[in-house]
Amino acid sequence: MARRFDAIRGNGKRQPAVPIDAAFTMDYVHRLRFTSDVLDPANPVLREVLAKTEDSPGRLVVVVDQGVAEAWPGLCERIDDYVIDALDWMTLAAPVQIVPGGETCKNDWSVYESVARTIHDAAICRHSYVLVIGGGAVLDAAGFAAATAHRGVRLVRLPTTTLAQADAGIGVKNGINAFGKKNFLGCFAVPWAVINDEKFLTTLTDRDWRCGLSEAVKVALLKDASFFDIIESAAPRLKERDQTAMRSIVRRSAELHLQHIVSCGDPFEMRGARPLDFGHWSAHKLEQMTDFSVKHGEAVAIGLAIDVLYSATMGRLPGSEAERVVRLLEALGFSLYHAALNDPALFEGLEDFREHLGGQLTITLLDAIGRPFDVHEIDLARMSDAIAHLATVAARPLS
Amino acid sequence: MARRFDAIRGNGKRQPAVPIDAAFTMDYVHRLRFTSDVLDPANPVLREVLAKTEDSPGRLVVVVDQGVAEAWPGLCERIDDYVIDALDWMTLAAPVQIVPGGETCKNDWSVYESVARTIHDAAICRHSYVLVIGGGAVLDAAGFAAATAHRGVRLVRLPTTTLAQADAGIGVKNGINAFGKKNFLGCFAVPWAVINDEKFLTTLTDRDWRCGLSEAVKVALLKDASFFDIIESAAPRLKERDQTAMRSIVRRSAELHLQHIVSCGDPFEMRGARPLDFGHWSAHKLEQMTDFSVKHGEAVAIGLAIDVLYSATMGRLPGSEAERVVRLLEALGFSLYHAALNDPALFEGLEDFREHLGGQLTITLLDAIGRPFDVHEIDLARMSDAIAHLATVAARPLS
Repeated sequence: MARRFDAIRGNGKRQPAVPIDAAFTMDYVHRLRFTSDVLDPANPVLREVLAKTEDSPGRLVVVVDQGVAEAWPGLCERIDDYVIDALDWMTLAAPVQIVPGGETCKNDWSVYESVARTIHDAAICRHSYVLVIGGGAVLDAAGFAAATAHRGVRLVRLPTTTLAQADAGIGVKNGINAFGKKNFLGCFAVPWAVINDEKFLTTLTDRDWRCGLSEAVKVALLKDASFFDIIESAAPRLKERDQTAMRSIVRRSAELHLQHIVSCGDPFEMRGARPLDFGHWSAHKLEQMTDFSVKHGEAVAIGLAIDVLYSATMGRLPGSEAERVVRLLEALGFSLYHAALNDPALFEGLEDFREHLGGQLTITLLDAIGRPFDVHEIDLARMSDAIAHLATVAARPLS
Repeated sequence: MARRFDAIRGNGKRQPAVPIDAAFTMDYVHRLRFTSDVLDPANPVLREVLAKTEDSPGRLVVVVDQGVAEAWPGLCERIDDYVIDALDWMTLAAPVQIVPGGETCKNDWSVYESVARTIHDAAICRHSYVLVIGGGAVLDAAGFAAATAHRGVRLVRLPTTTLAQADAGIGVKNGINAFGKKNFLGCFAVPWAVINDEKFLTTLTDRDWRCGLSEAVKVALLKDASFFDIIESAAPRLKERDQTAMRSIVRRSAELHLQHIVSCGDPFEMRGARPLDFGHWSAHKLEQMTDFSVKHGEAVAIGLAIDVLYSATMGRLPGSEAERVVRLLEALGFSLYHAALNDPALFEGLEDFREHLGGQLTITLLDAIGRPFDVHEIDLARMSDAIAHLATVAARPLS
């Protein structure tokens, strides 16, 4: 019935009103860099990403997560100096802007609006740059502003947490929370570049240091059993904040994440599955139920534990493998139980998850470490059993 | 230096931190339909666009421009009936929502927010549908909400004005005005479908009837000299509101617009040119300077006249051709002069235009009807001459 647009011939004369289905294609490039101390003027990474091009007027605004600014006194001055010393074709078009961070910064429009206003006031155009330095929440809210001001200016992300470097900062999403739903408003937008600077990880709290590891475990469970083994071996060093071990884990997690985006065939999630959100239906709900006192990475650890135990309850994943996952998450320092798991409201997370993605419910489970499969129904009684089982497993001391 | 992602081999072990440039591609389909009386249950067009698919839960919300609801008493009831009679697999998930229309509805977040809230309250998911019936402004503001709720739900546009049917409603843009800049916030998003229902045109005011014709002239000037001839021949009938003539002009304009989007190679305007915005640098500014009392289509008529006269002043377009364009616009009923053109603030429109698109200024001019070319500089003295010339030409009575 429908025809391709290129079949159309027209000279303005009346034609039968046949439907037109016009297909077109867009090419995208997602740039990912790994470095240490990106703001050292001798470090070429940021300079190369912001390379002088004919079509850019060389204007830059920089947005910094307040928590990062506090952890790195003098950071704003270093940014000023870097632009002067290393980016001679570029102008800092506004003073470095510090915005509140943490998941609650996504609960209203304030960070979005202040960044959009800066982009306006600083006359940032579509070929100018917005550099955002911060955790996943600031990257999300400021990134949404950058993606929608002028329908999208060039966004360079410098994720500063293990979670943002291993996972959230790599994605092609942005957004804020609205109407009590996490990430309800946002869009898909490919960043100009993402630069993972491991130096930022050194000042994280122990909780934030740990948080990215649950996402690393997640992507290992989905994509790469050998990576799971590596995380298992590295767990004691990771818990003791061994920077070399973390560098390797974050890097591989980021790569697997990016590889998924560019090779899955559905980077903007038009279809029904969202495999990278393994364990996330309960995690997102748990965050909301606890007013975000449980951090995203902590909630994901719990969510993974729930869904691997459910996979075992359903007879798909061997119990020993489920236990192995639970014990790795504990070895990394995660607490795997929270009183809110007793609240039946948790199960609303399934409907929120279905609705956000659309169509029928699709939940990813495991047949084995590294071998996921999808289901379209959840047996709530068995899911309750899995959660009850987690309460006992999680309580058991590490041997 | 950079490499393609598919060259990566990884097993979690440390590798040199080479940069990753990961390329990927997205396929889009843009559906355009032409019909009359789409809400007649016997008319298959909307039913086919909203066809039952496995991945859709069959939920629908409908947003209607207040002006359309007023012009068509009983419209909301007809929509209710249509869903019951013609869409048996679909549920109207909320009462039909009426929102204020006209360009001023884009001056704040209110339409955006009310539509986003409806999408939330009605549990519209990414595979559910939002149907928006209205002029270009409502399509823009409500479309921005649809594009960002859940990062994008399926949007079906029913443009109700000649301007929206010939031009604005066909595009892959949405947005609202902010910080005094037209369309400052928005995103690129391909609608699920656009349905041009010519019946809606019958109740337009003469001004709104006329407004789409300037965009039709624009696309003819850019793409199709024979279409310009056709508009010229049809001008007397168009002015007298001949529906058959308008059907043909709107249709060809919409097709040329869509053809440009899908074949230009840059549908999301990542690069430096925006050829479909011929005549728009002054038009957008004139709208703002007059608090939108000059309508978009009226401003575009003036903007076209300015840029064809400037093309002539620069020795590129023969003066007789420029005059031909001016006289066609007048024959269609447009007034081609406005006191605000004397205000030098008009020229700020050039910088707004440059900034919105990014990079260097790119303005499209004409060598001939149907033969555009781009310039990167505007000679302001000559542009002032062109505008002064317009004042005299426009004052001359039609012969």
